[in-house]
Amino acid sequence: MISWRSFRARRTTPKNARPRAASRPLVVSRVELGDFTPDLDVYLGLAAYLQLALFESLGRASSIAPSTRAKALTGLVATSTLERHQALLTEIERAGKDAADVMQPHTAVIDDFQQRTGGGDWYETMLATYVGAGLLDDVFSRLAAGLPDDYRDRVVAALETGAARDESGIVTELSLAIGADPKLASRLALWGRRLVGDTLLVARAAISASHESADDERLEPVFTELIAAHTRRMDALGLTA
Amino acid sequence: MISWRSFRARRTTPKNARPRAASRPLVVSRVELGDFTPDLDVYLGLAAYLQLALFESLGRASSIAPSTRAKALTGLVATSTLERHQALLTEIERAGKDAADVMQPHTAVIDDFQQRTGGGDWYETMLATYVGAGLLDDVFSRLAAGLPDDYRDRVVAALETGAARDESGIVTELSLAIGADPKLASRLALWGRRLVGDTLLVARAAISASHESADDERLEPVFTELIAAHTRRMDALGLTA
Repeated sequence: MISWRSFRARRTTPKNARPRAASRPLVVSRVELGDFTPDLDVYLGLAAYLQLALFESLGRASSIAPSTRAKALTGLVATSTLERHQALLTEIERAGKDAADVMQPHTAVIDDFQQRTGGGDWYETMLATYVGAGLLDDVFSRLAAGLPDDYRDRVVAALETGAARDESGIVTELSLAIGADPKLASRLALWGRRLVGDTLLVARAAISASHESADDERLEPVFTELIAAHTRRMDALGLTA
Repeated sequence: MISWRSFRARRTTPKNARPRAASRPLVVSRVELGDFTPDLDVYLGLAAYLQLALFESLGRASSIAPSTRAKALTGLVATSTLERHQALLTEIERAGKDAADVMQPHTAVIDDFQQRTGGGDWYETMLATYVGAGLLDDVFSRLAAGLPDDYRDRVVAALETGAARDESGIVTELSLAIGADPKLASRLALWGRRLVGDTLLVARAAISASHESADDERLEPVFTELIAAHTRRMDALGLTA
């Protein structure tokens, strides 16, 4: 499976690379979003509420899962989602803020995103989780670069909770279903294309929440990389992005 | 708050009690269900699937929560539910079984229970979680007495994950709402009465899954204690059971 994470690893650590040193910059460096990091409580509130919204979609998906195995996978993915949410709430408390207050300003944009991308059946929700949530996790991981030092590492660790395992589980289960049903394959390919548009809107909202002017020219390389990662995620399922 | 757990603590550790010793049995001892413990995989499959079903209800409740604070509480309770589920899956794997296979035989009874007790709004679902899941956690904790030694303690610890914290959070939030709205109070009192009947049916199914004959006479003291605990749970909300 070629996932965004392995792709990212290849980009930042080319074969035979010596340990990274300041005097020997990599030819291809990952575009960072540290300049666009919103204020700590805006970042944490948005990220925490997003995970809560994903949990709701996964709860609905679990109740209509096509098998007990699929339901168990949904529970596993939801567990990571809620663990990420709780870890982000811990950071909100550490910052001396109230979780509900900090999440409140972001409910409209995320609820709207969730309604449009929640999915009509189990397969669509799981693709939305893999593709949409995967893309947003990338965005939040990059935006974390501009957080205060003592928060950054914990937040990135929180966002990575269970990510590789969940991604692998979803790819396995969806690939099996796609391989057995060409109609599902074409439906999910279309769904994936719709998802990426809606997801990039939320990514842009998160980036625009900073005080920095988020003009298209500066962001273009970021969005190019995000879409490349999306294409690789769809490829891993045998779907055209 | 008078909860089942504090009630249980009082029953087994009376005021001024000396440390428990075999030579000095307590006057009132808790009725155990160790004779009625089903086979390990039946027990684990039923308990694990129940937690998964509770997560689905909580996901739905979160999406219709009356406030962001209520939504955050729902996420917290769902986190414990899924942590319990995952811990039980770990025990299933330890026993060398497949999680989906072991849960499969129990889907019908639990799905049916969930449909009847999931609740029509956030308040009803949270009461169902507090009252119904609370009662079933008691039943499963008691049934754990007959599990193989090396599983028993881990299973009981898993079932207790977050329980006291969640119970306290639900009681606080529901009490506020009940105090502010007498109509809600009478609706939830009725709902609680319906819940206990449906929940005791699942409790009985769990007990009847053992090889032991579960005749009413032997079980009566257990059900009396379970209903007493239910009454105390409702009392804590200011509702008549």
